[in-house]
Order: sequence, then C-alpha cells, then structure tokens
Amino acid sequence: MAKIAVLGAGSWGTALAIVLADNGHNVKLWTHRKEQAEEINTSRKNHKYLPDVTIPSSIYALADLQEAIQDSAAIVFVVPTKVVRDVSQQVAKLLQHKTTIVHASKGIDPDSLKRVSEVMEEELPTAMYEDVVVLSGPSHAEEVALRQPTTVTVSSKTIKEAEYAQQMFMNEHFRVYTNPDIIGVELGGALKNIIALGAGISDGLGYGDNAKAALMTRGLAEIARLGTSMGASPLTFTGLTGVGDLIVTCTSQHSRNYRAGYMLGEGYRLEEVLERMGMVVEGVRTTNAAHKLSQRQCIEMPITAGIEQLLYHDAKPKEVVDQLMTRGRRHEMEDLYDLLGKQ
Amino acid sequence: MAKIAVLGAGSWGTALAIVLADNGHNVKLWTHRKEQAEEINTSRKNHKYLPDVTIPSSIYALADLQEAIQDSAAIVFVVPTKVVRDVSQQVAKLLQHKTTIVHASKGIDPDSLKRVSEVMEEELPTAMYEDVVVLSGPSHAEEVALRQPTTVTVSSKTIKEAEYAQQMFMNEHFRVYTNPDIIGVELGGALKNIIALGAGISDGLGYGDNAKAALMTRGLAEIARLGTSMGASPLTFTGLTGVGDLIVTCTSQHSRNYRAGYMLGEGYRLEEVLERMGMVVEGVRTTNAAHKLSQRQCIEMPITAGIEQLLYHDAKPKEVVDQLMTRGRRHEMEDLYDLLGKQ
Repeated sequence: MAKIAVLGAGSWGTALAIVLADNGHNVKLWTHRKEQAEEINTSRKNHKYLPDVTIPSSIYALADLQEAIQDSAAIVFVVPTKVVRDVSQQVAKLLQHKTTIVHASKGIDPDSLKRVSEVMEEELPTAMYEDVVVLSGPSHAEEVALRQPTTVTVSSKTIKEAEYAQQMFMNEHFRVYTNPDIIGVELGGALKNIIALGAGISDGLGYGDNAKAALMTRGLAEIARLGTSMGASPLTFTGLTGVGDLIVTCTSQHSRNYRAGYMLGEGYRLEEVLERMGMVVEGVRTTNAAHKLSQRQCIEMPITAGIEQLLYHDAKPKEVVDQLMTRGRRHEMEDLYDLLGKQ
Repeated sequence: MAKIAVLGAGSWGTALAIVLADNGHNVKLWTHRKEQAEEINTSRKNHKYLPDVTIPSSIYALADLQEAIQDSAAIVFVVPTKVVRDVSQQVAKLLQHKTTIVHASKGIDPDSLKRVSEVMEEELPTAMYEDVVVLSGPSHAEEVALRQPTTVTVSSKTIKEAEYAQQMFMNEHFRVYTNPDIIGVELGGALKNIIALGAGISDGLGYGDNAKAALMTRGLAEIARLGTSMGASPLTFTGLTGVGDLIVTCTSQHSRNYRAGYMLGEGYRLEEVLERMGMVVEGVRTTNAAHKLSQRQCIEMPITAGIEQLLYHDAKPKEVVDQLMTRGRRHEMEDLYDLLGKQ
C-alpha cells in the first residue's frame, strides 16, 4: 500500500483521507492549523467539518508540509481554489521526488480565470509528475465519510495517471470512473456551484420544486454552453460531474452553496451569509469568474449574470429569479440546438 | 376566449383547468364520476387530488362527455395512460367538429408499447384535428394550482398546433415553450417515472444523496439511450421534459412515483404500496413497458431491468440497488459515447 499525502483537512479532504485509509494506504493529512492536526490525532474527530465521523487511527494529521509530502506516492490537493496556487508553490519548493498529483477542488482561479489543474501545472515542476488528475462528482463529504455509496469521476490529460488514481480510491462503496475530458470534468464541478446558489435562492424566496427544476435545467444548459466553448465535451455535462453533481448540490441541505443561496433568497446580504457559514462557499467567487468567462467567450449565461448582479451589485433576489422565469417566449431548445450546431 | 374541455379531474387535469381558467377560457372539466363533478361545482374543492386549492367558479365540472366536448376549441386529455385508448374511442364517437387535441399523460401504452399520441391518433378521426399536441415538463400539479412559477414544453408533429397550445396555456407564472421533438418529449415524461421509483427505493433503503444522484445520472443516460433508439433527439433529454422533469420527480415528496419507490425501499410489497397510494402510479406500468421496449430495441437499461425484477419478480430492493452501484469498473461515459456515435 502507498504513502499518500492529503493536503487540506476540510470536510472533503478528511473524507477522501478516510477513503484512502479504508483502502489500506498510509495517509498523512496536512492542515495549516497545528491545533486542528492535534485535535484529529488525539480525539480522532474533525469537529468543525465532519462532527459525526470518527477518523481512523491510520490517518496521521500534521501541519508540516515537508513531512506530509515526503516519500509520498501521491499528493491529493483538497484546498480552497483561492489558495491552490499558493499551496502548489509551497509544494514545488519542497518536492524532491516524482509523484502522482491529484486535486479535488471545485472552482476557477479568480485572477487568471484558469482551471485548477492549469494553475497547478504552472506552479509544479514538470519533472516531478506526469499529469494532474482531477477527482470530481456527486459526493457530499459527510456521506463519503460514513461509507454511503458514492460515485465519482477521475480525469487527466493522459489516461495513465487517472487510472492510477482510480485504483487508489476505488472501493466497494466509493466507485471511481474515468473520463478523458478533463476540461469538462473540472468546469462541471466548478460551475454547478453557481446554479446551486440559484437553486437555494429560489427555495429561500419560497418558490417551489417546479421553479427550481426549471432553473437547474436552464443552468445545466448554460454551464454546458460555456464549457463547450472552452473545449469541453457537451456529453460530460450529462454525466456524474455535470448533471449528477448539479443534482446533489442543488437538492441537499448538505450543500454549502445551496445553503448560502437559501439565505440570500431569504434576504440576507452576502457578507452576513459568509459570516454565518464560516466555511468557504466556492460558488460566490466562481460566479464572478464565470461571469467574466462568459463575456470573454461571448456566451449568454443569464442565470450566472443574474446571480452576479445579486452578489456584487445589490440586485434583489425576487427580481432576479422572476426575470429569469419570465424571459421572452421561445423555443425550448434554442440554446441546445445552437450547442449541437457548434459541435 | 375559447371553450376548452379538460378530460380527467385528477390533480394534473384540475391544475391545467385552473391555468386555462386563469387565462380567461371557458373551461369544462370532465370526470367519469358524477359525485366528483358535483363536489367541484358545489364546494369548489377537489378534496382527493388537490385538497388545498380553491377551484375558480369559471370551471364547470361535469360527467357528460358529449356536453364537455361540444363546441370546444380544444380538448385536453389528462387521463391515466391505461384509459387513453378507451377515452379516445369515446371522444371519436361523439366529436362532430374540428378541434385542437392536447394530451398531458406520461406513460406508454402497456399493450402496444406505443406513445400516448400514437394511441390517440389511431382512435381519433383524422378529419377532426391536425396533430396531437403533448404538454409535459417539471410540473407538480399542487404548485401549478397555487400559481407557483412553472415551465413546461409543448410539442406536435407540425409546429402550428403546438404554438396554438402554447398561446392557450401561457401566462405569467405558467411558462410554455415549444420543442419539435414529440418523440423525445413524450418518452422523457414517461420514462423518468421509472427512475423516480428507483430514487425513492434508494432513499427508502436509507442510502444518501450521493447514491441517489448517481442513480439519477445513470437513469437519465439509459432513458436517453432508449429514446434515441426510437427516434428522439438526445438533446431533448437534457431539457425540461428530460432532466428537468427527472429532477422534480426524483427529489420531491409531491411525486407519487418517488413515494411509491420509497415504500418499496422500506420493504413494502407492490400490492401494499399501490393500495396505500390510492392513486395511479404510472411508473409501475411504464417500467414493464420500457423493459419490453429495451429488449425490442436491444438497448441496455440496467436500472429499468432491476426495478422490473423488483416489481414483478420479487427481487430484494437492497440487492437491486447494490448491484447497480457496484457494476464493473468502467469508463464513465461509455454509454454516452455510444450514444453520440449513434446520432
């Protein structure tokens, strides 16, 4: 069994560390907070992020990055998107052997508008790894940590590294599939958080399941449209990392992005929402990045544009959702037939 | 404003009658039960199907089919799939003028395995209408009757009749879009009920949101696969009548098919479930029809096959779901790339 470093001890990092430990790997779980590492090692709990879960004794938490990655057969990045570049730079300085690099962050770099794997490739020394592998899919950390059945997708530019990661994570309840479309896999996971904010807003306003399903359907179409314009396969958006992750994020109380949206729909301002959440809500920054990307790619994204107005320009939630619901009478599939034409 | 007959005073028929009444139409709501017609006309309530809704006084309920359809500019069929042929035959005998025919039934004829519009076209005299229009989409009747925002799709072989129906139903909160792919629109609405049974079974077994999202994603792929083999556009399955209706049916307590599945997951037998529901659960018959279609079309439908085993051959829910979750390790999009190849 392999030595594996998991970087980031949030709920998802901890859950993935548990999957790897269950598979017999020797797991080091890195966190930048020493007291969190101590809590995990002594109490076997991660109270803030996964309060109901007991962490196996084969996971060793630590705050020393060098010790974490030393001799590792794989390094799994599970940090918020906004610190991916910084953590990659730190790893680049310390890394002294060739390893497998996996990431499970769902966002877009707010400054460069690049995907997470692109940012990592800019920072990590090319001699030290083959390709960055992304792991994504419909997977609430809480359920994964409790060994509930879950499916995810891994992808990398060449299939070899993705297949290695598949083997590393796969077990009876955590099912891992490969997909060669890394652009689509990364963008689906990132962009669906915008639609989850929207679904939460709709529910927070007191609208029903019909409205939410309409918004999710349109949302799927608009993120597929942007993704396809950036080189993704439209099919990926119908798979686990597209519609699958969209469903799980838009319909579950586990989802931070949905809960943040719900509070926005109830009338709380963004600052209040983020303060109450006390955790990273990736969808907020992703909305801004996707809005810029939609302008750069000349892609119409009405839901993203509406939520951007709400988050950053004080638009009223009810006005935003009502406007989306009553857009001019049209043929249902206009956008999708456009998409097919572009294939 | 037009005289419109709505045939069927279940929850969906009543809700659609309310939409039409809100739009100023003169609506006759036909039911085969005289006492139900009397209840609606005197108490303005449909206690069994829409207990929380007051029915506008402009809707006149009646049990006389001839009186219902007389002079009607449109007849909207909203009856269970299994009686579509019978009601069409009755209408064929009585109809004496040309009219617009719309249906909103979500099923497949259990004997002929034909779509609802095909069955209607076999029975209705061709001189009496242009094309059958189907109305489908993510639309719980309860929410529509309460004027919650809702989006649906209408489709017919030629666009003219669909556009007429669009105009008839469209209002501020009930948004109607056209789609030329009648095969996809009808099959999406029918087949998604099978996946809703599966989603309910998974929840009833105590599995989490990750498992349900996986099942829904795979389910969408398999119904799109069958639909495409029968001439539907794969894109329709990514729209309101595909993924939209799938979401609303699989994630809401309003959904009969989901609730029936939930009880099956808890261990109740099919007969007990149907007795407790006391309403038509279209997905049960549709599972049988789709299973036969999958064999006829040589299309792999593992979820449909599993549910068919559970419904009709006493398979255990846990075994069926576990088997679906642990199918051999594969490339995620195998099936979908197959689908793209077939386009």
